[in-house]
Amino acid sequence: MVKLEEFVIHTTKYNDFINITGEVEKCVAKSGIKSGMVFVVTMHTTTAITTNEALECLQSDMMNLMWKLVDEDGNYSHARMLHSYGTTAGNPTGHLRSMLTGSHVIFPVADGKVLRGSAQEIFFCEYDGAQSRKICVEVMGE
Amino acid sequence: MVKLEEFVIHTTKYNDFINITGEVEKCVAKSGIKSGMVFVVTMHTTTAITTNEALECLQSDMMNLMWKLVDEDGNYSHARMLHSYGTTAGNPTGHLRSMLTGSHVIFPVADGKVLRGSAQEIFFCEYDGAQSRKICVEVMGE
Amino acid sequence: MVKLEEFVIHTTKYNDFINITGEVEKCVAKSGIKSGMVFVVTMHTTTAITTNEALECLQSDMMNLMWKLVDEDGNYSHARMLHSYGTTAGNPTGHLRSMLTGSHVIFPVADGKVLRGSAQEIFFCEYDGAQSRKICVEVMGE
Repeated sequence: MVKLEEFVIHTTKYNDFINITGEVEKCVAKSGIKSGMVFVVTMHTTTAITTNEALECLQSDMMNLMWKLVDEDGNYSHARMLHSYGTTAGNPTGHLRSMLTGSHVIFPVADGKVLRGSAQEIFFCEYDGAQSRKICVEVMGE
Repeated sequence: MVKLEEFVIHTTKYNDFINITGEVEKCVAKSGIKSGMVFVVTMHTTTAITTNEALECLQSDMMNLMWKLVDEDGNYSHARMLHSYGTTAGNPTGHLRSMLTGSHVIFPVADGKVLRGSAQEIFFCEYDGAQSRKICVEVMGE
Repeated sequence: MVKLEEFVIHTTKYNDFINITGEVEKCVAKSGIKSGMVFVVTMHTTTAITTNEALECLQSDMMNLMWKLVDEDGNYSHARMLHSYGTTAGNPTGHLRSMLTGSHVIFPVADGKVLRGSAQEIFFCEYDGAQSRKICVEVMGE
């Protein structure tokens, strides 16, 4: 069985980590699949999906790391007039933070539930908000 | 068919790369699945799963990179009294190295074997040991 | 249903990002699978697979980031005589850039097509070319 769900998040900040574990678990419950896998993937190139513990102090450390590794004031090529856009590209850092973080996570589904560690929450990472963002949750199994 | 296995590693160092390819291959053999996929995912937020070549000199380079990008002596918010813990959080670097490395790998299964490159070994990354750690190996297919 | 395809790329540069979205979509079309998932995984440890927007200016920013985080002139252990190789290892940076980028991507398949965002292209990352490189594309579903 294959069950695909999409949902939209309206982010409110330029850069933000948003806990979407509850949404993912709803998709798994709705799928009716008892045994298999679930993967969660963003449909955008200036966002990411990751797993980590949900603690305000930790999410701020994660953000500081992304800003340290991908300097907001660095010199980027993707920050110039793009004819295909008809405007100036202004989000090189979002694309690069996305590259470092990754586009998806995957977990087993067992007994109809996402099998994750007790501290593992699933985060949507907004690196060029505020925007409306689409996330796909696919459940496969029996 | 869906076959899920879990195994536990007792790590012995604060930070370490442990080759778990043999364990993963045992799970695939035991599953009886001939054609499909296997994914390996950690159940913890201060550990990671990655693939790379198994060479002592290379694992030390990987470790040095993680320590360079996520400075052990940096200023972190997740290094303070946490009421929900009842203690001081002391492992911000583990969470951040985990974020950069990733929580899982995925490979095809063909002819009942993990289809990986000749140099590709599967590593469990301990970033806050020594601890007992749980890893899930799921095989899906026919 | 499980459909596994392999293809080979002959890279031409030391470090390069190569858009393989067309190849992946051909594999999905050929599989005949209408609903499920596709994952793309490299078979090498000095290469990677990632997703991002296809823009020359952006790929150069991605490359600069990898070179900034993994310094070409850094001190590495994996840059010495290796008896098992019979030669000097000279590609520590390739292994480390591979570790940061990741070995695979995964997307849903819906209506027989890769379900990806409008800006999401799939890239093969060469970090130690020029070489012949093997990539696996596996489609699973119904």
